[in-house]
Amino acid sequence: MEMCLTCSVLYAKTTLGSEGSLGIVTKVSILTPPKLSSVNVAFLACTDYLSCQKLLLEARRKLGEVLSAFEFLDEQAMDLALNHLEGVRNPLPPALHKFYVLIETTGSDEHSDREKLEAFLVHSMEEGLISDGVVAQDIQQASSVWNIREGIPEALMKAGAVYKYDLSIPVEKIYDLVEEMRNKLGHLARVVGYGHLGDGNLHLNISCPQYDDAVLAQIEPFVYEWTSKHHGSISAEHGLGLMKADKIFYSKSPAAVQLMASVKNLLDPNHVLNPYKVLPQSLSSP
Amino acid sequence: MEMCLTCSVLYAKTTLGSEGSLGIVTKVSILTPPKLSSVNVAFLACTDYLSCQKLLLEARRKLGEVLSAFEFLDEQAMDLALNHLEGVRNPLPPALHKFYVLIETTGSDEHSDREKLEAFLVHSMEEGLISDGVVAQDIQQASSVWNIREGIPEALMKAGAVYKYDLSIPVEKIYDLVEEMRNKLGHLARVVGYGHLGDGNLHLNISCPQYDDAVLAQIEPFVYEWTSKHHGSISAEHGLGLMKADKIFYSKSPAAVQLMASVKNLLDPNHVLNPYKVLPQSLSSP
Repeated sequence: MEMCLTCSVLYAKTTLGSEGSLGIVTKVSILTPPKLSSVNVAFLACTDYLSCQKLLLEARRKLGEVLSAFEFLDEQAMDLALNHLEGVRNPLPPALHKFYVLIETTGSDEHSDREKLEAFLVHSMEEGLISDGVVAQDIQQASSVWNIREGIPEALMKAGAVYKYDLSIPVEKIYDLVEEMRNKLGHLARVVGYGHLGDGNLHLNISCPQYDDAVLAQIEPFVYEWTSKHHGSISAEHGLGLMKADKIFYSKSPAAVQLMASVKNLLDPNHVLNPYKVLPQSLSSP
Repeated sequence: MEMCLTCSVLYAKTTLGSEGSLGIVTKVSILTPPKLSSVNVAFLACTDYLSCQKLLLEARRKLGEVLSAFEFLDEQAMDLALNHLEGVRNPLPPALHKFYVLIETTGSDEHSDREKLEAFLVHSMEEGLISDGVVAQDIQQASSVWNIREGIPEALMKAGAVYKYDLSIPVEKIYDLVEEMRNKLGHLARVVGYGHLGDGNLHLNISCPQYDDAVLAQIEPFVYEWTSKHHGSISAEHGLGLMKADKIFYSKSPAAVQLMASVKNLLDPNHVLNPYKVLPQSLSSP
């Protein structure tokens, strides 16, 4: 069992990353800590990616125990959300911001948590890490800020065709890939980067009016090779599933994949458990 | 890789719980969050075990985000520490307390963390959960409070022979086992209970002047059967290792153990990786 804290989704996985291909869940018992009562959300703007990184480090230091989300989106993602989603508006005054960061804190004491967050924002402003920022004043404002971040996949669907990649990459390299991809594609497509920066997770999305093999040829295998070269993973939180099973070698050595297949054969000799997933068909046939 | 936060020990395990029997670690990369600057320690007394449980629930609710340790010891453990360790004294005024709880908080803001802890203690006192308590005023007092808890294994060694069990049991049942064992053994031995209550972990220690097969026969297999019946684990944090490899069936079904042995054979066909550990010899021979 695994809980994605940023998405609030409960994943049932018999073995981490096996996507149910090593067993079935017959019974689940979840021990949950009491829900903490105080949630605060801030929406901030940064002028460059380096500032986002420094802000993350600072947030871990100053808000460590209450920090429950640290999400980033670039201006392209923000434009998409503003143009394609109903009722979404930028809570910050109009200005040219390259990056936005959503910070959520969760703790037990409204007063002291809010003081902590505000002191952190003042300090970050003084240090020049953020160029603007706002703290949601109530749950409605907090949820409308979350709507920007969570609405991006919907906005991308409305904007046309989209090629989606869910990568984990060392934090300091994350945005290099977005920029390289942007340079490579030029006017062919719009490259959008957002994700759970706190987890080193990039949602790289490439949006164009319609699906186009010429665009795809520019993206793949480049994106997989780039991620592999930088010791990242090509499936950060969503698993390899059906569509990316044959891409596993970008993240794992042949010996490791062979071992995974052997374990799979041992546990499921007839391949009845969630078949065709995770491992290439050549390795997982009975 | 696994970090025991209460013991501050870094365990290198290739697979959780495999004790190195499924592989060897060739390279380790550890991403550590910045150390938070504010640590507070309180030492509290409870009159019964139910109060310890309620206190834990309350601590999770009121101190959730800063709670970094919740340890308990019974009066027998305290007596041992006071009688056999040099320089250890009870920080609470003399009184008959059945249980002691050590709470540690770790956060980023000295002032607000301390306020939170003190408010929690006042509330717990009013609710009758604790009968007495003290907050360490400086790092020296904090470390002398930790010395009581961490000195218990040494005190047990000095007191004579000791039979040690490291169990995980549902929190509400933990102390039932200590009391049943105490009733069973009577004057034959001293039964001591302490551990990481926050993790459902009991260190059950049975102390007597010298090792005695008659005492051991009273303890085993009773302690294993009792733990198994209450859906606990007979190796909470220390693993089965060499001495308890044949006790694995108290925690796992024969089918599960057979699968573990098959995976072991697959990864290590010549049984050169940390041999004789975890699995019974009958299953793990080449």
